[in-house]
Amino acid sequence: MGMADRTGKPLDHAGLAVLSYHECLRLVASEPVGRIAFAQAGDIEVFPVNHCVVDGTIAFRATDGSKLGAAIQGSVVAFEVDAYDAARREGWSVVVKGRAELVTDEATLARLWASGLQPWATGVPRLSWIVVRADGVSGRRL
Amino acid sequence: MGMADRTGKPLDHAGLAVLSYHECLRLVASEPVGRIAFAQAGDIEVFPVNHCVVDGTIAFRATDGSKLGAAIQGSVVAFEVDAYDAARREGWSVVVKGRAELVTDEATLARLWASGLQPWATGVPRLSWIVVRADGVSGRRL
Repeated sequence: MGMADRTGKPLDHAGLAVLSYHECLRLVASEPVGRIAFAQAGDIEVFPVNHCVVDGTIAFRATDGSKLGAAIQGSVVAFEVDAYDAARREGWSVVVKGRAELVTDEATLARLWASGLQPWATGVPRLSWIVVRADGVSGRRL
Repeated sequence: MGMADRTGKPLDHAGLAVLSYHECLRLVASEPVGRIAFAQAGDIEVFPVNHCVVDGTIAFRATDGSKLGAAIQGSVVAFEVDAYDAARREGWSVVVKGRAELVTDEATLARLWASGLQPWATGVPRLSWIVVRADGVSGRRL
């Protein structure tokens, strides 16, 4: 039997409450901004993007031919979403691991455009869509 | 001559305003939580931690002998800090790239302990200190 917090949630090795798969997905969709992290040329890159969740899949818009799009096409990525309350010193974090994919399927593009997601950054057009094909989801609350 | 935003800040290829080094450091210290990202066993890992900035260096506490501490010792990492205002659809992000290092120098430990940083997660003791030896800092505002 592992550790558990006051509400009965299991705790991980770091003493953090482990969230269920469905709670993780709900939380990812509850925040407008996440961060996509990936390895490139020996560095780790992290970019915040405003995202949506369509058919259970994380999606965001990118500039056509962007460095970001080219860099992450087919790459192993982690997409992290979190929120915290500094006054109460508590928060949660969900990490979705998988591969980033530039969407070219027309039916999928139609569903993504129908989401109405608008990029916050308006300096350049963002007409491409990138999705995260998830291999695993994990979440922690502290 | 490159692009610039309304306040005269230079814009990057994605149309985001580029922040100065000093503004980046100020912003990193202004938020209590950042995210450390690194590659491990073919995956990308992202962990939020509550951090401080001591002598211009990002530092946070970890469990003695923790998986996190072992995983990132000497590793190439990115430490990302951001904040955003969903109503105004704007925010900033700073990424510090470098290597994570478990602190063993006694004088440094004394300065870190003097910072008074308390881990938010209290499930297990966090008596080790990890710092990010920065190779580069970049920041964007949108």
